[in-house]
Amino acid sequence: MGYHQSRVLITGGLGFIGSHLARRLVADGARVTIIDNLCALHGANVFNIRDIASKVSVNPCDVRQRHVMEAFVASTDFLFQLAGQTSHLHSMVDPLTDMEINVEAQLSLLEICRRRNPGIKIVVASTRQVYGKPLYLPVDERHPLRPVDINGIHKLTAEQYYNLYHELHGINSCVLRLTNTYGPGMRICDASQCFVGSWIRALIEGEVMRIFGDGAQVRDFNHVDDCVEALLLAGANGTTSGKTYNLGSGEHISLLDLARKMATFGDGGAYECIPFPPERKRIDIGDYYGDISLIRNELHWSPAVGLNEGLQGTVAYYRQHYHQYVRMP
Amino acid sequence: MGYHQSRVLITGGLGFIGSHLARRLVADGARVTIIDNLCALHGANVFNIRDIASKVSVNPCDVRQRHVMEAFVASTDFLFQLAGQTSHLHSMVDPLTDMEINVEAQLSLLEICRRRNPGIKIVVASTRQVYGKPLYLPVDERHPLRPVDINGIHKLTAEQYYNLYHELHGINSCVLRLTNTYGPGMRICDASQCFVGSWIRALIEGEVMRIFGDGAQVRDFNHVDDCVEALLLAGANGTTSGKTYNLGSGEHISLLDLARKMATFGDGGAYECIPFPPERKRIDIGDYYGDISLIRNELHWSPAVGLNEGLQGTVAYYRQHYHQYVRMP
Repeated sequence: MGYHQSRVLITGGLGFIGSHLARRLVADGARVTIIDNLCALHGANVFNIRDIASKVSVNPCDVRQRHVMEAFVASTDFLFQLAGQTSHLHSMVDPLTDMEINVEAQLSLLEICRRRNPGIKIVVASTRQVYGKPLYLPVDERHPLRPVDINGIHKLTAEQYYNLYHELHGINSCVLRLTNTYGPGMRICDASQCFVGSWIRALIEGEVMRIFGDGAQVRDFNHVDDCVEALLLAGANGTTSGKTYNLGSGEHISLLDLARKMATFGDGGAYECIPFPPERKRIDIGDYYGDISLIRNELHWSPAVGLNEGLQGTVAYYRQHYHQYVRMP
Repeated sequence: MGYHQSRVLITGGLGFIGSHLARRLVADGARVTIIDNLCALHGANVFNIRDIASKVSVNPCDVRQRHVMEAFVASTDFLFQLAGQTSHLHSMVDPLTDMEINVEAQLSLLEICRRRNPGIKIVVASTRQVYGKPLYLPVDERHPLRPVDINGIHKLTAEQYYNLYHELHGINSCVLRLTNTYGPGMRICDASQCFVGSWIRALIEGEVMRIFGDGAQVRDFNHVDDCVEALLLAGANGTTSGKTYNLGSGEHISLLDLARKMATFGDGGAYECIPFPPERKRIDIGDYYGDISLIRNELHWSPAVGLNEGLQGTVAYYRQHYHQYVRMP
């Protein structure tokens, strides 16, 4: 896809999505450098790259380290910006850390690009959280941006930086707004990356999968392989600079139906609806699913992994590797 | 207006607007504390409070000093958040400093309020720059928010913080979106607060007032006395929490007409249209004037100082005190 022999930097490369991306790029013959701060809470897990560890350069540093970032960013062709604090709840408890990572480090990174490597291509992982509570469904990219939590505010600020630096300084960046992404390598200790992680853990431990509210709220999901494919397309395609695309599946499912589906996997599982914890209720966005026509039409991206197949494979992965994720090294 | 004997903290209180606000509050019998980092570039000038210096407490510190802010914020009834980096151009040259002051310090301040003083009332000076290039005129508060420079992005991020902390944590804050504000005490060395400042300086020095472009672009203006009145109303009125209001005059004037008007003051002045410097052109917003129905209806605020009267008084002030502003202490 155009990555052969190219220098690719992945921030958050030990994380869930970053590690899958690294694997694909190694297979494509790219020279992959990973930056990761090893923060398990944000999803870092060296087990995620066990099979490609000798084929990538792993650097235990943080996107907040300006001078370190300068050294790496100055000499790369592609940058996949996947490092981030992703938990909405944590962003409310410790908003300044979320700001340092999701805002300050992004601006600093763009300043480095402007001064040292204006020809770089950047693909940025943003989030559907920038939309806040949907005013209509499915949500397309023209939907008003009204985030309801600190993480959403910060991801929106970063999007604006990337767009501005494209418009004023010609920095080639493309923003993808990810929705719930699941698959092998996701964090399952808790729901900080996606609630599906905590459900998988419950399923394997024989615990009850807990749904907040009545379970009628709908969501859309992407398997990580599809997400990675979109990242690669966005990076390789010369027309994506300055653009923003939704990811999603084009389909949606209620949380109750999702729990019913997952309960049938393997030995069977239990689920129950419980009242929203207040700190979650106040940042909940209700129903959401995205319109993915834009990326479908412009980049010919189309999700290939069905929800049944994808979830079953993911659960099977965690049955095998449970201790690599619940007892992290 | 309800400020008698109350504890009022003004950040940026040695600046243009902050010093006028302090003067009004002293007259109303408030106990006024000023925080100011003495940054002349951002408008600080001790001459601005020469007549009330013995009646206010002046503290040379910075809103970025978290522990210092905590000490002051914990024990105040009202906070007028006027400290800021206001130059659009500087925000493009040094975006990280703009971020520290206009984003990080604001979030830190709100965290302090949440933990230490949730009953505080905050009035925040924001800017019409959050709208970006107007899609329609006059611009009301429902206009899309699409800032075109770093300063606009940051002021919008801060607005979102204040609204979120109101909604989720009950912090009483009100946001005013200021437009071009002029009057005695404004920075006239350059155009970093408002281009009118540099025109006043040119007029007094017998230099040519320079208009970027053809001068057809329209703007609206507020005299600082009207701006201060709006700040005081927003702080004293119990219904303003969580709300955002435009300031403005309800009128507009082209820059060419404004220059013609100012050229008639005193000994007469010259003006000319010159091409936009490229770094200004790319962040110019074209025509702008605001719809002020909302604050007019809800707070019964109405600008009282006419543009002729206000500008003539301002020019007279700078003829008398020129050296206090062009040669700053």
